Amino acid sequence: MKKILLTCFFIIVSNAWINAQELKSPDGNLVLTFNLNAEGTPVYFLAYKKKEVIKESRLGFILKSDIKMNKGFQIAGTQKQSEDNFWEPVLGEQKKIRNQYNELKADLIQEKSKRKITIYFRLFNDGLGFRYEFPVQDNLRHFVIQEETTEFNLTGDHKIFWIPGDYDTNEYSYTTSKISEMQSLMYNAAHVSMAAQTTIKNLAAQTPLMMKTIDGLYINIHEAALKNYPAMCLNVDDKAYSLSSHLVPDAVGNKGYIQTGSFTPWRTIVVSDDARNILVSKMILNLNEPCAFEDTSWIKPVKYIGVWWEYFTGGGSTWAYSDNQDVVIGATDFSKLKPNGTHGANTKHVKEYIDFASTNGFDAVLVEGWNEGWEDNTAFKKERIYSFTKSYPDFDVKDLSVYAKQKGVKIIMHHETTSSASEYERQLPDALKFMVDNNYNAVKTGYVGPIIPRGEHHDGQQMVNHYTYIAKEAAKHKIMVDSHEAVRPTGLHRTYPNWFAQESARGTEFEAMEGIHPDHTTILPFTRLMGGPMDYTPGIFQGDLSVYGSKKNKLSTTLAKQLALYVTMYSPLQMAADLPENYMRFKDAFQFIKDVALDWDDSYILEAEPGDYITIARKAKGKQEWFVGGITDENPRIALIDFSFLPAGKSFTATIYEDGKTADYKSNPQSYNIRKVNVNSKTKLKQKLVASGGVAISIK
Amino acid sequence: MKKILLTCFFIIVSNAWINAQELKSPDGNLVLTFNLNAEGTPVYFLAYKKKEVIKESRLGFILKSDIKMNKGFQIAGTQKQSEDNFWEPVLGEQKKIRNQYNELKADLIQEKSKRKITIYFRLFNDGLGFRYEFPVQDNLRHFVIQEETTEFNLTGDHKIFWIPGDYDTNEYSYTTSKISEMQSLMYNAAHVSMAAQTTIKNLAAQTPLMMKTIDGLYINIHEAALKNYPAMCLNVDDKAYSLSSHLVPDAVGNKGYIQTGSFTPWRTIVVSDDARNILVSKMILNLNEPCAFEDTSWIKPVKYIGVWWEYFTGGGSTWAYSDNQDVVIGATDFSKLKPNGTHGANTKHVKEYIDFASTNGFDAVLVEGWNEGWEDNTAFKKERIYSFTKSYPDFDVKDLSVYAKQKGVKIIMHHETTSSASEYERQLPDALKFMVDNNYNAVKTGYVGPIIPRGEHHDGQQMVNHYTYIAKEAAKHKIMVDSHEAVRPTGLHRTYPNWFAQESARGTEFEAMEGIHPDHTTILPFTRLMGGPMDYTPGIFQGDLSVYGSKKNKLSTTLAKQLALYVTMYSPLQMAADLPENYMRFKDAFQFIKDVALDWDDSYILEAEPGDYITIARKAKGKQEWFVGGITDENPRIALIDFSFLPAGKSFTATIYEDGKTADYKSNPQSYNIRKVNVNSKTKLKQKLVASGGVAISIK
Repeated sequence: MKKILLTCFFIIVSNAWINAQELKSPDGNLVLTFNLNAEGTPVYFLAYKKKEVIKESRLGFILKSDIKMNKGFQIAGTQKQSEDNFWEPVLGEQKKIRNQYNELKADLIQEKSKRKITIYFRLFNDGLGFRYEFPVQDNLRHFVIQEETTEFNLTGDHKIFWIPGDYDTNEYSYTTSKISEMQSLMYNAAHVSMAAQTTIKNLAAQTPLMMKTIDGLYINIHEAALKNYPAMCLNVDDKAYSLSSHLVPDAVGNKGYIQTGSFTPWRTIVVSDDARNILVSKMILNLNEPCAFEDTSWIKPVKYIGVWWEYFTGGGSTWAYSDNQDVVIGATDFSKLKPNGTHGANTKHVKEYIDFASTNGFDAVLVEGWNEGWEDNTAFKKERIYSFTKSYPDFDVKDLSVYAKQKGVKIIMHHETTSSASEYERQLPDALKFMVDNNYNAVKTGYVGPIIPRGEHHDGQQMVNHYTYIAKEAAKHKIMVDSHEAVRPTGLHRTYPNWFAQESARGTEFEAMEGIHPDHTTILPFTRLMGGPMDYTPGIFQGDLSVYGSKKNKLSTTLAKQLALYVTMYSPLQMAADLPENYMRFKDAFQFIKDVALDWDDSYILEAEPGDYITIARKAKGKQEWFVGGITDENPRIALIDFSFLPAGKSFTATIYEDGKTADYKSNPQSYNIRKVNVNSKTKLKQKLVASGGVAISIK
Repeated sequence: MKKILLTCFFIIVSNAWINAQELKSPDGNLVLTFNLNAEGTPVYFLAYKKKEVIKESRLGFILKSDIKMNKGFQIAGTQKQSEDNFWEPVLGEQKKIRNQYNELKADLIQEKSKRKITIYFRLFNDGLGFRYEFPVQDNLRHFVIQEETTEFNLTGDHKIFWIPGDYDTNEYSYTTSKISEMQSLMYNAAHVSMAAQTTIKNLAAQTPLMMKTIDGLYINIHEAALKNYPAMCLNVDDKAYSLSSHLVPDAVGNKGYIQTGSFTPWRTIVVSDDARNILVSKMILNLNEPCAFEDTSWIKPVKYIGVWWEYFTGGGSTWAYSDNQDVVIGATDFSKLKPNGTHGANTKHVKEYIDFASTNGFDAVLVEGWNEGWEDNTAFKKERIYSFTKSYPDFDVKDLSVYAKQKGVKIIMHHETTSSASEYERQLPDALKFMVDNNYNAVKTGYVGPIIPRGEHHDGQQMVNHYTYIAKEAAKHKIMVDSHEAVRPTGLHRTYPNWFAQESARGTEFEAMEGIHPDHTTILPFTRLMGGPMDYTPGIFQGDLSVYGSKKNKLSTTLAKQLALYVTMYSPLQMAADLPENYMRFKDAFQFIKDVALDWDDSYILEAEPGDYITIARKAKGKQEWFVGGITDENPRIALIDFSFLPAGKSFTATIYEDGKTADYKSNPQSYNIRKVNVNSKTKLKQKLVASGGVAISIK
């Protein structure tokens, strides 16, 4: 019987031999061509408005050890299908998202080995997504990926916004250059101080990777639905302008353990001749699976403050309760340690934060340094660094739980793991129970330093599985997750909407460390945020840290730009990161942070150029309220704000938070001006932004 | 203040400079000398009855990267103390154990770096134990061990009973040779088929390592209390007859992550001029910490049968429920798979085992293959291989739980992890709850194949911590643990008596695979069993597997020797491994297995020579019952059984299970004879054992 089936199969194969397949996007602007080359290697081309975007690029894999799954293929069959429908994200930049694409499915078989692979191409109006399927088959069940050999062959020496390829960190500053200039700039880009860092030795960059061609085409390469697979970096051939996949290896150098009957993540190419459309694109979300949870009523946006920035200011506040670094979790009786007197997360102080949050309408207070172990939180060298269920003696869990509840505020749990993921998983069941018992509904996780299990990387398959595991386990307890230092997002917040924000890029904390470039936040929405919301933690009003002590750091933006970030950096989780006392000094500006929405009916990308400027307007979900944010890089500019997003025929009051006339991000960042103007759908506002300045507008 | 303290300290140092220290065992037979050599390296010598046992041997560490903690030391102070008391193990070979030793503690400090180390030597009448302490100190908190540099310099080309040094398996056959012959024998010793194997490249062996000098001194080297540290193999210098520590590395080649304020395991040297004293020694237990649990009433010896041997016989029984290997835990609906009809762990069949256990007085039935995942249990390639809470459709957990309870029998849980330790830890809380809910009180764990987290080894620090973690978590649920393929034991069953047995050596299963040498079980008590009880699973009556099908394996012992193993191989967990039908064919011989005790008031090593023969008598705990086991290697012999262990002045009936006159382990293993004789404390029995034969005696 088996033999008969195989015979039938061959007949199908030979009948199904077909030539190049073409697929068009619904609007016809994008055209994908798929074919096999002379070696039987699957190849694709992508064109946009009849211009080449991706030249002939090869697809496939090399399996361990040196088994070629990238040549010798025949096409066993192809199939086309289309979809056009709408879906509603639990939280998001818009209430409804259209999922409209044409799909080409190509079943391939290697003549000799009979190994099979299927490639799916989905062409949307805003770009291409493609992924591999490893179907269940007779001659292959388990295999190890030596490398994925997906190429993205570019048409020229594009302008590129990049961070170095790295297995462990994405907290680099962006470099803007031509592809041909990358090599000469790599040394400075990569030689920075990071807690965990494994820079790729050859020339490589990370995704989401943003590029602009010489003739004004914008191209963004990333991936969607990264599950049970390592993250993809991109090798850069700076002569041929060719990018190719470079998967993050595991402790023994393998790049993925696959069982047939599975799919890779989608490789995504968002394309437009208008930079704004890159930010509009929801293709990555569309390529992710629908929400995995039936009940999502417990998933809410969160605006929060935190016992956090005071650890960075140089003001002396500490995560640790004592100065005794010879502590051992489980053995040390922390109540017998001599308190250092600078411990930030003490009951009294946290109550002050809760009071402030309650008074000013914040949903929550993040408390870092609440739990045993911070005295000796050296990474990599010990497995058991923290307890996730035992608070320091001066942090009264029960008292604070009751107090916060009375004040209508949640405390956000903090689980810094210092990358001891094995130990975190051991404690997880108890840690989740502890949260439920004490009224926590959100956790900020942290992965500072090199990973335990040792040799694994932040962005490898095992840790990718870890982060998803944590999100899923948390969901069972109706807990939302904000992960820091994890692999960058790939739209999984559609499937697991409780994993509602991540850091996974250089965030505000670097303003108190190595610094942030003025253009950084004009690049992030085109790169890191393509994958999902970022807990960037904006809102620093007191940017000159010398007021606190010995630190000399100065904020890289004006105060008005800090406000604008609440709109330009989409996240349903937003922090007002500065100390309450600073908000009290600038109550009128603080009002914008209090007012700004976190969840949206719609978003309008008004102006955008990566590395230069971004202006976005958004309509608050279920409300007749709009918020506008505009930012610029190190260059001053005039933002042109077109209010046509407002309903026609009505007039509204807009409160404009703008850079003061003498504002200067270096010397006078706290200069701002607030004015009210009437606007309607016909208003076009020319708004001046100083260097690294911004504008924030609330409209009611 | 700090400075003043430091000054005081230096004065102490200079005052405390002292010369070689001598320590004697309580009976004066063993003498340890400790000193620093000219390089400031700590060294020790060991003599027994004025003969050198260990020549000058160096101690210390090399820390990463190349930091010498093995020279430049001064002695900051020494201290002596003694202890002599008795303690009672929960389960054991004797009811009371005497802990009698003299201790020398030497505090060392490196002149330049001010790094401190303390060495403890404990000299018992039966041997030496020493360990390192890394005290809390100013200049050292965390460090990585590059290598431990402990030496055991031998006095000559001893006879040695060895298995190859390996990071992942201890299931080798033993080779008996001179040290100088090891290199030439290594290829054959190491080149055998193992599921996971990482043989050390240089000449190395594993502990417990048994040796015999040319003048009849027996030396056993092992370790005690292996916690949060990698296992120690021994490099062998076959020219200088020197052994040195070789710790098992982790995934990135490091050999231990240490925080000061901690101790290494004890390095143990058991010495005697009478081989029997090696087996009598309880030094390794004495060096372990007392029991960590307050309530131990739930820890009981277990005699069991199991749905197990039928998977090895070639009779067609399978762990897997179906033949569909494309299963995915969590995604596959196993109830929809086509059953293969050979699944061993089905409700009806398990009930037959329960009936047999109940009828014949067994405590428990092990059931392997009860849970989802066996169809595709490939090691290393997938993380999630099994469910530990979902049974196959034909294994009715609730029904069997009720049935077993009615019959007064426990079912032993089986957790084969196929070494996916990370996934096992994820499932552990649910798996433990599942056991409690369904009336299981013991689990057999398994670690076949290479470890996940990938790159880690079975015997490295992380897995050492894993096994202990499992034992401790199980204890919280009053569950006993029998681990297979784990690191070999080091007496931790004193501290965690629920971890009551392990495999960790070549056990009976190999009789159905690559085979077992006739001398194997005469060596194991001198090697593997020095660390703790072994779940050897004896009791095979039908040793010719050709009766079941295509297998040609033949047992390496006579039937009588199989009986004797219940006494010679101490374990509070003993299996009757053969199929019930075979026991029904030899009911009279089976009676010994039914009768034999598992827990003892006292044990008497009557005769012993490693590699040749062992005869042991034991008194059942709290009963006037004695059992004797005697075995021999490939040579027939006359065992001389001295019954002076019996109380004087009384006569007893001894039932002797002996090799039949025509018995031959190759051609006629099932020939045995049972006779009854009267014995008293003056009886001296000359008992004939055929080649690879044995004798078992029960006395009431």
